[in-house]
Amino acid sequence: MELIVYLAGQIHDNWRDEVEQIAQTKQLPLTFVSPQTNHDRSDDIGEAILGEQPGDLYKDDAASDVNNFRTQVLMQKADIVIALFGEKYKQWNTAMDASTAIAMNKPTILVRPTSLIHPLKELSNKANVTVETVEQALEVIAYIYE
Amino acid sequence: MELIVYLAGQIHDNWRDEVEQIAQTKQLPLTFVSPQTNHDRSDDIGEAILGEQPGDLYKDDAASDVNNFRTQVLMQKADIVIALFGEKYKQWNTAMDASTAIAMNKPTILVRPTSLIHPLKELSNKANVTVETVEQALEVIAYIYE
Amino acid sequence: MELIVYLAGQIHDNWRDEVEQIAQTKQLPLTFVSPQTNHDRSDDIGEAILGEQPGDLYKDDAASDVNNFRTQVLMQKADIVIALFGEKYKQWNTAMDASTAIAMNKPTILVRPTSLIHPLKELSNKANVTVETVEQALEVIAYIYE
Amino acid sequence: MELIVYLAGQIHDNWRDEVEQIAQTKQLPLTFVSPQTNHDRSDDIGEAILGEQPGDLYKDDAASDVNNFRTQVLMQKADIVIALFGEKYKQWNTAMDASTAIAMNKPTILVRPTSLIHPLKELSNKANVTVETVEQALEVIAYIYE
Amino acid sequence: MELIVYLAGQIHDNWRDEVEQIAQTKQLPLTFVSPQTNHDRSDDIGEAILGEQPGDLYKDDAASDVNNFRTQVLMQKADIVIALFGEKYKQWNTAMDASTAIAMNKPTILVRPTSLIHPLKELSNKANVTVETVEQALEVIAYIYE
Amino acid sequence: MELIVYLAGQIHDNWRDEVEQIAQTKQLPLTFVSPQTNHDRSDDIGEAILGEQPGDLYKDDAASDVNNFRTQVLMQKADIVIALFGEKYKQWNTAMDASTAIAMNKPTILVRPTSLIHPLKELSNKANVTVETVEQALEVIAYIYE
Amino acid sequence: MELIVYLAGQIHDNWRDEVEQIAQTKQLPLTFVSPQTNHDRSDDIGEAILGEQPGDLYKDDAASDVNNFRTQVLMQKADIVIALFGEKYKQWNTAMDASTAIAMNKPTILVRPTSLIHPLKELSNKANVTVETVEQALEVIAYIYE
Amino acid sequence: MELIVYLAGQIHDNWRDEVEQIAQTKQLPLTFVSPQTNHDRSDDIGEAILGEQPGDLYKDDAASDVNNFRTQVLMQKADIVIALFGEKYKQWNTAMDASTAIAMNKPTILVRPTSLIHPLKELSNKANVTVETVEQALEVIAYIYE
Repeated sequence: MELIVYLAGQIHDNWRDEVEQIAQTKQLPLTFVSPQTNHDRSDDIGEAILGEQPGDLYKDDAASDVNNFRTQVLMQKADIVIALFGEKYKQWNTAMDASTAIAMNKPTILVRPTSLIHPLKELSNKANVTVETVEQALEVIAYIYE
Repeated sequence: MELIVYLAGQIHDNWRDEVEQIAQTKQLPLTFVSPQTNHDRSDDIGEAILGEQPGDLYKDDAASDVNNFRTQVLMQKADIVIALFGEKYKQWNTAMDASTAIAMNKPTILVRPTSLIHPLKELSNKANVTVETVEQALEVIAYIYE
Repeated sequence: MELIVYLAGQIHDNWRDEVEQIAQTKQLPLTFVSPQTNHDRSDDIGEAILGEQPGDLYKDDAASDVNNFRTQVLMQKADIVIALFGEKYKQWNTAMDASTAIAMNKPTILVRPTSLIHPLKELSNKANVTVETVEQALEVIAYIYE
Repeated sequence: MELIVYLAGQIHDNWRDEVEQIAQTKQLPLTFVSPQTNHDRSDDIGEAILGEQPGDLYKDDAASDVNNFRTQVLMQKADIVIALFGEKYKQWNTAMDASTAIAMNKPTILVRPTSLIHPLKELSNKANVTVETVEQALEVIAYIYE
Repeated sequence: MELIVYLAGQIHDNWRDEVEQIAQTKQLPLTFVSPQTNHDRSDDIGEAILGEQPGDLYKDDAASDVNNFRTQVLMQKADIVIALFGEKYKQWNTAMDASTAIAMNKPTILVRPTSLIHPLKELSNKANVTVETVEQALEVIAYIYE
Repeated sequence: MELIVYLAGQIHDNWRDEVEQIAQTKQLPLTFVSPQTNHDRSDDIGEAILGEQPGDLYKDDAASDVNNFRTQVLMQKADIVIALFGEKYKQWNTAMDASTAIAMNKPTILVRPTSLIHPLKELSNKANVTVETVEQALEVIAYIYE
Repeated sequence: MELIVYLAGQIHDNWRDEVEQIAQTKQLPLTFVSPQTNHDRSDDIGEAILGEQPGDLYKDDAASDVNNFRTQVLMQKADIVIALFGEKYKQWNTAMDASTAIAMNKPTILVRPTSLIHPLKELSNKANVTVETVEQALEVIAYIYE
Repeated sequence: MELIVYLAGQIHDNWRDEVEQIAQTKQLPLTFVSPQTNHDRSDDIGEAILGEQPGDLYKDDAASDVNNFRTQVLMQKADIVIALFGEKYKQWNTAMDASTAIAMNKPTILVRPTSLIHPLKELSNKANVTVETVEQALEVIAYIYE
C-alpha cells in the first residue's frame, strides 16, 4: 500500500533529504511532497509570475497566493503529514500546515526538539504523535507496514 | 473491483489468517489491513520509539499515539470494516473501531458469538450486518461480487 | 453561555445525579441529557412499543432500535460528552457512544478509574481529556466559564 | 442579530478588554469568548485538576488537554474569529487557532503589526481580512451591521 | 428540550392531526412541520405562482420546484423525521423524503402496516425504528423525554 | 477517464444488459455495478447466510442487511447513478437508492416512462437529468466524453 | 418558525425594500440580510478601514476582503437565499453568491427577467426555484407557512 | 503525480488548446477536462436527447440538465480548476463554476484581463490565485512540480 506523505516545516536545511534517505533504507513505499524548499524562489514566486508588485506587502501576498495553492493541492493528495519544528526557524507556516492537516483529519506527526515542548504543547496535544527526530517519525510510519 | 477490508478486533488468536484463507478460497480480490497483531509489540511501541516513559499510564499513552495513528491511516483507506468480538477478549478497542467506522460511513460487519447478543445489541443494531462466524462475514462480502 | 452535556456510561448507579449536584454547586449553566437509566425499561422498551418478539435476539434488537434513536437525537443536540467507565460494568455501549462523539467532533471527557488505564488506552488517547472522577470532569467544564 | 466572536491570540496584555470596550462604544451585539487569559492558570490547569505530573512534558500535556477542550467548545459556538499576533509574543497557538478556524469555515480576521507581514504572509493570505489594529478588526465586524 | 418533527408521507387522510393530538395528550414539547397537505394546492402551486405551463410535464415540474424547496427548508430545521406509508397511497415521495432524511443523519421513524413489510424491507432496515402505528411512533419520541 | 455507474432499479427484466450493450456499442469506458439482480437470491440472502429466521419480517430484515451492505459499498465507489422506474414494478427501493445518491452528490439520471411523470415529479426534479429510455441515459453519459 | 433570508443581487435599486414590504404585507416572520447596498461604501470599505492602497487593484482587493467577510457571516446564518438578476446590472457577484449558496445546500430562489433565460440557464437549473418577480419569490416562501 | 484540471470559462475561442500546448511544452503530467466547447451542441443537447421542447425556456432547461450533469461528473474528478473570463463573453456560467469549485475546496486559479478587475473583485478575492494570462496559470501549476 503506497502512501503520500506531506513534509511541512522549515525550508532552511536538508531535513527532507534525510527523511527520504531513511525511507529508502527502510524500503517504505512512500511518496514525499512538500512546500517549495528554495527559500528565495518561495519568496519571489508571486512577482516571478505576476510581475513587480507595489511594495513588500503586495509582493508577499502574491507569493502566498501561489505557495498556498501549491500546499492545498498537495495536502489534499497526502495520506499522512509530518510537521517539523526546528530550534532556529520558528515558522508560523508549520503551525498553520499542521493545524490545517489535523482539521482535515490527516494523520499528523509532529517533530520538535525538547526545547520546544512548552510553546508547542497545544499543537502537540492535537497531533496524532509527537516525536523528537525524523528517524522516530519514520519509525511511526514504518509501524503501519509491520 | 478490488476492495480494502480493515479487520478490527482481538489480536490474541489467528482469526485474521482464517479470514484471509477463506478469501483466497473464494477468490475474492480483497486486501486486508489490521491493527498491530503482535500484542507485546502493540503495548511496547510507544517506548520502542520514544524511549522509556515515567510510568504505566505514560507508556500506554505513548503506545496509543502510535496505534491510533496506524488505525487512522488504514481505516481511511478501507472500503469495508469487519469487527470481531470473541468470548474471551472483550476489548473496548473493537467497539471503538467499529463505532468510528460506522460514523465514517464505512460499511461494517460485526462478528460476535450468540453469548454476546445482549451486551452488543446497540452496536450490532448500528452495524450494517451482524453475523456469528468469519465464514459468514466473508459470505456477505462475496455477495457483492455475485 | 448555556451548554448541553450528554452523559454516556453505565446506568447502574447514581453517578449522573452526582454530576448534576456538582454542576449545581458550581452554578454551571448546563443541561444534562443521557441514555435511559432505568435498566429494565431500557431492555424492555422494544417489546413495550412493538409487542412481543420471537426470542431474545429480536427483543434486544427492538430495544436497540429505540435506544439508539434516543441517543442519536440527544447526542446531536449536545455540545459536550462525558463518558464514564466504572470498574463493575464494562459496557461496550460507553465505548460506542464515546467513539461516535469523537467522530462527530463533540468535545469529549473520559472518566475512568486507574485500574482501567490499560484496556482504555486507545480510547483515552482519542478523547479530549481523561480524568478519574466526575468531580474532575466538572472542573474541566467549569474551566470553560472562567 | 447577535454574533459570538472568539478572540484568539496572546494572553499577556489586555487587548481583549480593548476589543470589548470598542464593541460597547460601537453598540455591537457581540458576545466575546476566548482562551484562558490568566497565563499561570493556563499552564497549571492540568495539574490543578489531575494532580502532579512526572515532569514538565506531562504537566504541559495535561494542561493542553484542558486548554484544547475549552477552545474546541467555544470555537464551535463562535460565528467569527479574531486572531491577534503581537510583536512580543509570537505564539504558535494563535497560528493553530486561526488555521483551525479557517479550516472550519469560520470567518476570520487577522490582526498583526506591519513588522510581521513577511512571516505571516501565508496565514494572512488564507484569512478573510488582515488588519493592523483591533480598532480596525471591530470596524470590519461593525460593517456587517450597516 | 423542544424538538422539531417533520412528518413525511401521504397527504390524503388526517394522520398528521392524529399525531398532533397524541403529542398533546402526552404533553410532548414538539413542533410539527410537513409537506403541503392540500393535494390540489400541492399539484397546482407551480402554475399558481409561475402561470400556465405548456403541458402536464411542465406543470408538474413547476410544482415540484416549490414543493421540494419547502421540504428542503423544513427538513433542514427538523430534529426528527417520521415517514408514514399507508396501504392505499404508495407514494415514492415518502421513500424519497425518508431516504434523504437518513442520508442527512436525521433520526428517522418509519410507520408502515404489516402488509408492506416486504416491499419496504430495505428502507425499514435503514431507518432508526420501524413501527406500525402513529401511536407507536409517538411512544418512541416520548421515550426521549423519560 | 473511466467511470463507475451504479444501475439502480427493478430487477425483473434485462434492462441492465441493454445498458451494457449500448455502452459497448458506443465504446464508453464504463464499469457497471448494481444490486443483486436474481430476485430469489436477493430475498433469500439473509437466511442463506444467517440461517432460518422466525418469520417473514425477520427473514426480510436479514436479507435487507446484506442487500443494503452491498449497495452501500458499490454506491460509494460509483461516479454516476442511473435509476430506472418501470411501469410494472414500482419499487420503493429505486426511490430510496436515487434519493440516497442525490444526497451523496452523485450525479444521477432518472429513467421513467411518461406514464410515471406525475408520481415521480419531485424525485425527477431533484435528479440531474430525467429521460424516458436507457438509450437516452447512455447518450447523456456519452456526452461527457465528447 | 422564523427564517433568515439572504438577498443576493444588484445593489442599484430598491428591490430589497420591495421584498421587505411584501413580506410585511403577507405577515411572514422573516429576517432579511444582504450585502452592503450603498455602492460607494461597498467599493470604498477597504480603504476606509485599511487606508489608501497603491492602486485600483489593491483598493478593490481590500474592499473585497471586507465584503466577502460580511457575506460569509450572513450567508452562514441564512436559511434561504434569494438571488436577483436584473436587466441592467449583470453582476458576477450574484452568480457567485447563488452558486455558493447552492453548494452550501441553502434552499435558493433565482429571480430573473425572461430576457435572461438563456445566459442564466445552467444556474437556474441548479437553483431550487426560478421566478420572474420578487412578488413570486415571496409567494414561494409564503408557501412554506401554509 | 498526475493531476486533473477542469477548464471553466467561455467556449468561443481556442484558449483551451493554448492551455494544452503550454502544458505539453512544460511537460506537465496534466489531464484537462472541460464543459462542452461546441456552442451549438451545448445549446441543443437537451433537444438532441429528449426531443423538441415546447419553447425556448424548456429547450434551455433541458440543455442545462445535461450540461450541469457533465460538469458535476468532471469537476468532482478534478484536482484543480482554472476559470477564465474574457473581455468579450462575460458568462455567468464561469462565475458559477468557479464559485462551486471554491465551495468544494478545489484549488482554483482565476484568469481575467485587467479590464475586469473591478467587476470580478470579490470572486478574485475568493480564488486561490488570480492571473491575467493562461501562460501565467500554467506557471502556477508548474510550480507544484518544482
